[in-house]
Amino acid sequence: MYQNNTEMDFYPTRMNSESKIIPRTDPVVYPSSLTSLTRKQEDFFEKNGYLVFENLFSIDEVTALLDELKALSKDDSKKELPQFILEETKKDVRSIFEIHKLSEIFSRLCKDSRLVDVAQQLLGSKVYVHQSRVNLKPGFDGKEFYWHSDFETWHSEDGMPNMRAVSCSVSLTKNYEFNGPLMVIPGSHKEFVSCSGTTPDKHYKQSLKRQEIGTPDKKILEDMVEKGGIVSAKGDAGSAIFFDCNIMHGSNGNISPYPRSNAFIVFNSIHNKLITPFCGLEPRPNYIGSREFSVLDPIENFLN
Amino acid sequence: MYQNNTEMDFYPTRMNSESKIIPRTDPVVYPSSLTSLTRKQEDFFEKNGYLVFENLFSIDEVTALLDELKALSKDDSKKELPQFILEETKKDVRSIFEIHKLSEIFSRLCKDSRLVDVAQQLLGSKVYVHQSRVNLKPGFDGKEFYWHSDFETWHSEDGMPNMRAVSCSVSLTKNYEFNGPLMVIPGSHKEFVSCSGTTPDKHYKQSLKRQEIGTPDKKILEDMVEKGGIVSAKGDAGSAIFFDCNIMHGSNGNISPYPRSNAFIVFNSIHNKLITPFCGLEPRPNYIGSREFSVLDPIENFLN
Repeated sequence: MYQNNTEMDFYPTRMNSESKIIPRTDPVVYPSSLTSLTRKQEDFFEKNGYLVFENLFSIDEVTALLDELKALSKDDSKKELPQFILEETKKDVRSIFEIHKLSEIFSRLCKDSRLVDVAQQLLGSKVYVHQSRVNLKPGFDGKEFYWHSDFETWHSEDGMPNMRAVSCSVSLTKNYEFNGPLMVIPGSHKEFVSCSGTTPDKHYKQSLKRQEIGTPDKKILEDMVEKGGIVSAKGDAGSAIFFDCNIMHGSNGNISPYPRSNAFIVFNSIHNKLITPFCGLEPRPNYIGSREFSVLDPIENFLN
Repeated sequence: MYQNNTEMDFYPTRMNSESKIIPRTDPVVYPSSLTSLTRKQEDFFEKNGYLVFENLFSIDEVTALLDELKALSKDDSKKELPQFILEETKKDVRSIFEIHKLSEIFSRLCKDSRLVDVAQQLLGSKVYVHQSRVNLKPGFDGKEFYWHSDFETWHSEDGMPNMRAVSCSVSLTKNYEFNGPLMVIPGSHKEFVSCSGTTPDKHYKQSLKRQEIGTPDKKILEDMVEKGGIVSAKGDAGSAIFFDCNIMHGSNGNISPYPRSNAFIVFNSIHNKLITPFCGLEPRPNYIGSREFSVLDPIENFLN
């Protein structure tokens, strides 16, 4: 046991023998004086838990990000870094964490006002990067990622107190229905699924490849899908999807020749800084759940 | 070595160190005096290698087939039969082969004129059932099935001389983009991919769960998809897709709660009866590649 969290835990999890639903008490869209999003977009996000922006970034911008990524993942000296997560085969890079620290251009992407303005408006405050990563899902043998709520893990393993964070996935390749795109269950963000099991020590070393603890029972998933259906994030490279920290999501494998790469940035409110993890274990490393809380000052265009 | 096939082998495979393309010499649509299909449908099949019939069977018909299937797969005494293929976990039934012999209603389905007329017209002759099976892809953990041409296996392991067979998949559940539907590469049926490797003895015991021998190299698949794209068989329960014996196809896994069941029937021309397998091994059992050659007499409606 690392140390007990003495804060009130509104979303207890991994303490029961089976999953159960706890209603969300936190807002989805926080009050804000910002005006980048229309009222209609805010309402859509409140109801469904996600928001899609087609072609938010240009081909040139995507190309610049992909070039950087290719260089990084070909650099064998870097594969030993803990930020580099390899496929179970140990050959290919599956993800690179803390990409905003390993790369200047990705650092600037995280500050781009096209992203930060949206995050600030939804969360009603200044924001910082809780986690950043790029995912490289190769063609032919990309593995599936089972249903989960990110907040469930961030709350339990990182000590994120409340649901006041939003994720953004920027597509760096075209997302087809065939290449294992992100799937979300609309509306599922309004219920917290308290999961069964307990967190093993250093759980993240396994869970970043295949998560088994912190996933809901099948019956709960069936009910959620019956209510909300499934939506997949298809679209051209350069599109972005924002999704609530608590929305249930996952992705199928990919036997198609089409690879799937995306940049993933989690914006957390500065009023929702991490505290002691609720699972009683040591916090995960900074490159997975940052404890630096550096407020983001938006910039006009990350390439310029 | 079982015995040498003295027939001319127009489609040699599993004799090289890498995949290579051999142009198809057999017709795709054979001359026929039948008129169930329009000329447009024939042309579409000739060009693309598949043909979809939305809602070919009614809800009542699908329900009758599903009820039969539930009864069969709950029957633990039957799980020991070689016709029953279990998931790698050994718990769930993945497929039941020779379903037209294990079930009266499925036997009648194979003779239904809505299917047999199409097969007879495409193949320009009377037909028999080379293989029948039902696939039960459960929700949440349905496994993927990698790209392959059925003819490659039937030729090599069953001794099917020519490309004069057509498969029909009847959907018994709704096919979404999310639950690992059949994916085909349009146009790929016009090229035979001679695969690398050699056939291990009793290969079918492994390959029915996960095929590794008889699958094309990635480069060839990339080229085929670049030329023809990918089409997935989505649609309501009761829809049917016919696809050429040599079309490249596969399916992704399924983490969605939606199960995916279908009945799969291979119609082979009576002028294309099996001979000695070209791989030099003993033929596969009758329940996988039938050597009974019983000509099908079409019936009006399988339920009546």
